[in-house]
Amino acid sequence: MDLKKLLQPNTIAVIGASEKEGFGGDTCRNIIEYVKDLKNTFFINPKRDYVFNRPCYKSLSDVSVDIDMIVICTPKKTVEPLLIEASKKGCMGAVVFASGYSETGNEDGKKAEESLKKLCKKLNIALMGPNCAGFVNYINNVYPFAFISKKRDRKGNVGLISQSGQICLSLMETQDMRFSYIISAGNGNVITMEDYIDFLVEDKNTKVVSIYLEGVKEPKKFINSLKKAAVRRKPIVVLKAGRSEKGRKNAASHTGSLAGSDKTFDAIFKKYGVIRVDDIEELMATSNMFSIINKLPEKPTFASMNLSGGETGVCADTGYTYGVQFPDFTEETLIKLKEQLPSYASPNNPLDMTASLSYDAELYANALRTIMNDENIGTVLIGYTLLLEIADPAIYYMAEGIKKVVEEGNSKPIIMLPFLENTRNYEYTEKLRKIGVPILPPSMYAFKIVKHLADFIEYEYNDRTLKTALPEYNNLQKTKALSEIESKNLLRKYGMPVGDAYIVKDESEALDAAQKLGYPLVMKIESADILHKSDVGGVKLNINSEKEVLSTYHEILVNVSNHKPEAKINGILMEKMMPKGMEVIIGVNNDAQFGPMVLVGLGGVFVEIFKDVSLYPAPINKAEAEKMLKKLKSYKMLTGYRGGLHYDLEALKDMIVKISNFADKNKNVLSEVDINPLFVYPEGSGVKVADAVVIMKD
Amino acid sequence: MDLKKLLQPNTIAVIGASEKEGFGGDTCRNIIEYVKDLKNTFFINPKRDYVFNRPCYKSLSDVSVDIDMIVICTPKKTVEPLLIEASKKGCMGAVVFASGYSETGNEDGKKAEESLKKLCKKLNIALMGPNCAGFVNYINNVYPFAFISKKRDRKGNVGLISQSGQICLSLMETQDMRFSYIISAGNGNVITMEDYIDFLVEDKNTKVVSIYLEGVKEPKKFINSLKKAAVRRKPIVVLKAGRSEKGRKNAASHTGSLAGSDKTFDAIFKKYGVIRVDDIEELMATSNMFSIINKLPEKPTFASMNLSGGETGVCADTGYTYGVQFPDFTEETLIKLKEQLPSYASPNNPLDMTASLSYDAELYANALRTIMNDENIGTVLIGYTLLLEIADPAIYYMAEGIKKVVEEGNSKPIIMLPFLENTRNYEYTEKLRKIGVPILPPSMYAFKIVKHLADFIEYEYNDRTLKTALPEYNNLQKTKALSEIESKNLLRKYGMPVGDAYIVKDESEALDAAQKLGYPLVMKIESADILHKSDVGGVKLNINSEKEVLSTYHEILVNVSNHKPEAKINGILMEKMMPKGMEVIIGVNNDAQFGPMVLVGLGGVFVEIFKDVSLYPAPINKAEAEKMLKKLKSYKMLTGYRGGLHYDLEALKDMIVKISNFADKNKNVLSEVDINPLFVYPEGSGVKVADAVVIMKD
Repeated sequence: MDLKKLLQPNTIAVIGASEKEGFGGDTCRNIIEYVKDLKNTFFINPKRDYVFNRPCYKSLSDVSVDIDMIVICTPKKTVEPLLIEASKKGCMGAVVFASGYSETGNEDGKKAEESLKKLCKKLNIALMGPNCAGFVNYINNVYPFAFISKKRDRKGNVGLISQSGQICLSLMETQDMRFSYIISAGNGNVITMEDYIDFLVEDKNTKVVSIYLEGVKEPKKFINSLKKAAVRRKPIVVLKAGRSEKGRKNAASHTGSLAGSDKTFDAIFKKYGVIRVDDIEELMATSNMFSIINKLPEKPTFASMNLSGGETGVCADTGYTYGVQFPDFTEETLIKLKEQLPSYASPNNPLDMTASLSYDAELYANALRTIMNDENIGTVLIGYTLLLEIADPAIYYMAEGIKKVVEEGNSKPIIMLPFLENTRNYEYTEKLRKIGVPILPPSMYAFKIVKHLADFIEYEYNDRTLKTALPEYNNLQKTKALSEIESKNLLRKYGMPVGDAYIVKDESEALDAAQKLGYPLVMKIESADILHKSDVGGVKLNINSEKEVLSTYHEILVNVSNHKPEAKINGILMEKMMPKGMEVIIGVNNDAQFGPMVLVGLGGVFVEIFKDVSLYPAPINKAEAEKMLKKLKSYKMLTGYRGGLHYDLEALKDMIVKISNFADKNKNVLSEVDINPLFVYPEGSGVKVADAVVIMKD
Repeated sequence: MDLKKLLQPNTIAVIGASEKEGFGGDTCRNIIEYVKDLKNTFFINPKRDYVFNRPCYKSLSDVSVDIDMIVICTPKKTVEPLLIEASKKGCMGAVVFASGYSETGNEDGKKAEESLKKLCKKLNIALMGPNCAGFVNYINNVYPFAFISKKRDRKGNVGLISQSGQICLSLMETQDMRFSYIISAGNGNVITMEDYIDFLVEDKNTKVVSIYLEGVKEPKKFINSLKKAAVRRKPIVVLKAGRSEKGRKNAASHTGSLAGSDKTFDAIFKKYGVIRVDDIEELMATSNMFSIINKLPEKPTFASMNLSGGETGVCADTGYTYGVQFPDFTEETLIKLKEQLPSYASPNNPLDMTASLSYDAELYANALRTIMNDENIGTVLIGYTLLLEIADPAIYYMAEGIKKVVEEGNSKPIIMLPFLENTRNYEYTEKLRKIGVPILPPSMYAFKIVKHLADFIEYEYNDRTLKTALPEYNNLQKTKALSEIESKNLLRKYGMPVGDAYIVKDESEALDAAQKLGYPLVMKIESADILHKSDVGGVKLNINSEKEVLSTYHEILVNVSNHKPEAKINGILMEKMMPKGMEVIIGVNNDAQFGPMVLVGLGGVFVEIFKDVSLYPAPINKAEAEKMLKKLKSYKMLTGYRGGLHYDLEALKDMIVKISNFADKNKNVLSEVDINPLFVYPEGSGVKVADAVVIMKD
């Protein structure tokens, strides 16, 4: 199927064209309003001769030319026959608004969607929807979209794809957002969200890809697009549904999407530098910021310039809350600012300029230029609440001053940060937009959004394995836990540090093993049927002599046969006791869509009470392993905390890399790994797997 | 000084009346614009006969009547002579705009402010400022305010006090906020922030007190007002500067305020149920919500009603992030909703109603009524982005439906929650306001704000000691650490569980003490000069015989004389070794303004890595102690975590109450207490102070 036939058609037919409210009427209204040249658009309705004074055809076959794409505004039952008819006219694209398909959750709906999908495949028709609101292609002026919004020029460079038509409409209704494409994907089972994402990542007219996503259906395509965007540094901004259980449930009933594990999405987004936002306003404003600024900043640092002390304080505090860096100005900047500002102002970053400079464009430009030239600063934030109706003339002078500085060629971004929500004055919004200055929402959003900017420029795709171990098949449902020795042997095979161990089946084997291993020893029951060995008296530590080996051997067997008589016993596992190190937990969970996710955290309360863990998709390189560790609050426990030991971080990173490789290579058959604990020893002394369970698919 | 003479004057003179831009001109412009009856307002300017066509007097003495209050628009140097002159005319209130006082941070400025303060006291003049923007009294129509904003009716019930004039202006510029008073306090050294706060808490026309606060100067007055507001359930919403170091610095250079310890303010606000917000938008919108709703909800739970699936998902996820509770609907509600909604909708909370009901007021009212009647729900959130210019007619029907339900007398609050920032349609904002429905900012703010509402109604002043142990004097700067035994004896005196201990000065006393205490023993060096006893070999544990007592006695003395020969030794401290319990840290820090703050947390990494502590002002009752403990993430460690022990929470709470009483009684002389650790034993077995240092002021 060719997405271009859908999104960039030469000829279009609107089936069910009408003047009434509803899909047919509203689509026609939009087309009449926005499409400049209507000669390749055909309205079809057997009951009408004209629609909005344009000729209307009785049926597709009455149209004399081939039709690339049809917009079906009529009910569900008409859809399949129309597609078959259209196909005969050379149609290879279709938009279907009708609902009643898989989103209903019922069998009839699911079947209808399956049938539709099959038909499209057969006819080679790229279909948008069903249960969608259509799309707008602002680049080629194509407007098969069913929701009405206020008329304004929206052509720009944000490519929006949404599983909610209402969110498309909302972003169109924002004051200043400009788009290359707006795509309401609906259920997205024929042409999927992933297809559209890939299209926009590839599209040279799209500078920012903005997505409302309920779930992913084609992980491989999805990852591939994220990777391309990461390498090209094209920002992808995603509002992903499903942080909460109620949010996941809602996604399922809205477009029939399975939202997937939320933490997995966070991990995937981290790997590919995708910007995740939390609501519609943040999606809009983050996309808009990336859309408008002329160039990315070179440093993740900010200056904040304000006209009042109260607002300066809010910037200092809110910036701090969101982790925005305000470095001190250089000495040179401070000296210059002292000359420029009134005597009662004290130059700091954030800066209270006082209002006095804002009534003279030249003075304002001077101060702004001084700050823009400071080597510590990456981006300048101008704190100012631009209102709809201007009461205070300061903006006249400020805007002129900003323009002056921008036109001198200083390429650091300038961003305006208001303190109160409002529709912004149209004239000045437009003036500022034209010179690359976006206006953000009020401070709580604004600082969250500029932190996205800082994170985006700090992301380095060269530091990352841009590969994700996506399972090739995923049809194995049953799982089987390996016994401890099987688990450890498997890990050892993949280069992970596991102590020597023997399974013994009688006294003489036990004594033999003891001699090879040396004392002190650990002895444990070895059985895949017993997961909690201690609970059945199946673990004995600190065995120091032949005599103890023999007595323990029998003791364990008696305990187990008392507690768990039905368990199949493979023998007794004998290992040399390991010295205790710092306890680290490493887990792997094989996500049904995105494959093995590796989890790392310090043992005990760190993981259990504080959930202080890092999760990241396999495979993982050493730089990524380091980032995972540094993200832990408990990281400092490993690096000489309170005069304590420095632990062997190199070995720990190697271990993470190895387990991720193991998981990668076994992505189709692995279910879970739980290494708990891994002992991490002091610098230079390595790590060792103390206990491990591997669960494979069967 | 009588605040009413300042804020509710009968006669006013504007000194420096003018038509130019600036304090004089802008104040006159505001008065002409807003004050209905100008017969008691007198303009004074020696150079003018008329100002805006109103007669202007050469000087105050030319005015024939007494003047209650003067507004000084002229420069700093004129202020004191004017006050003296005005006093002769019976003046007891003044507004001073001029800056150049204590906010400069320099000696001249501070002196000028000291002098001004003294003069006002002498003349009995209640002075607002200096370095302020004046005030508006909307109730009595008094308008000595120097900033210009768009004309609209702003009379309402929010009392605003701000240390930033710009923040006053910002809140006036918001679309829909309505005030009883707006007060720009400026430096606030004559009439203080605390005076204004108390005035508004007492004022019956003020429903919500809204504050931008840089620092507190009169803690006693402040606390007293908070207490009154807590008991009357009048919401106080505070934007307090100084979350960050840079924010604290900015407050100091803005109005010369010392921002104080930020965590102390959090603790104080918690005790009195004060709502702390983080930026100007949140201050505005939180105040506005409390101002508009007709009645507080009875439950801290919410229903969310939306017109689209995407928006419903955002509500579910964002609500979850901010801890907003969306309980499930009752069976009855679900049955009714299923009848009312289209067949493809699935009734959940948050609810995707689909757009279909929003084009019929009756159907919309039915669904709303059904949800309002659900016993699980406290407040209903209507998700809808009202725009400035209405494109979609849904709001006509929704507003009518809402009105219908409200007028039936259902008293649960209804709040509108938009998804994008905008100036809201004036007509509908007003319609909704009149029936008690506020419109919040977009979702990130909105959910934070409705969580404030939930917290506010959950606060119970009856559960709290509404007392704070404010120091009566605070002139002792030097501190002196008590030795361990002195510290413990002091704590024992206040009923805290401390083991028996003896100081021994020779071998025979040591043997004697051993016999009285029993084995095993701990022996430690006792010296106020040695804080870290272990570091000098001054601590020995697990002493089990007379022989060991004697050898240890000498060993400790030798160690100490080697490591710390200059220390004054009081002897050797002997104690019975305590069994180990769960280690808890209890600290007290005596805040210079708000007195002793009690800190509780679990020992070790809990406090040190995760900063998992509760801080609360003394004195503390048992219910408050319980809240402190429950706030800890590590609380579960005390309550049978992973099948572990249940610790003696009753004894721990008693301990917190006792240490807070001790701190309260010693609030003028105590500097610090550090109990580390307190051993907490299993249920019924109490707690015991294992180590303690008390530092007193000297």
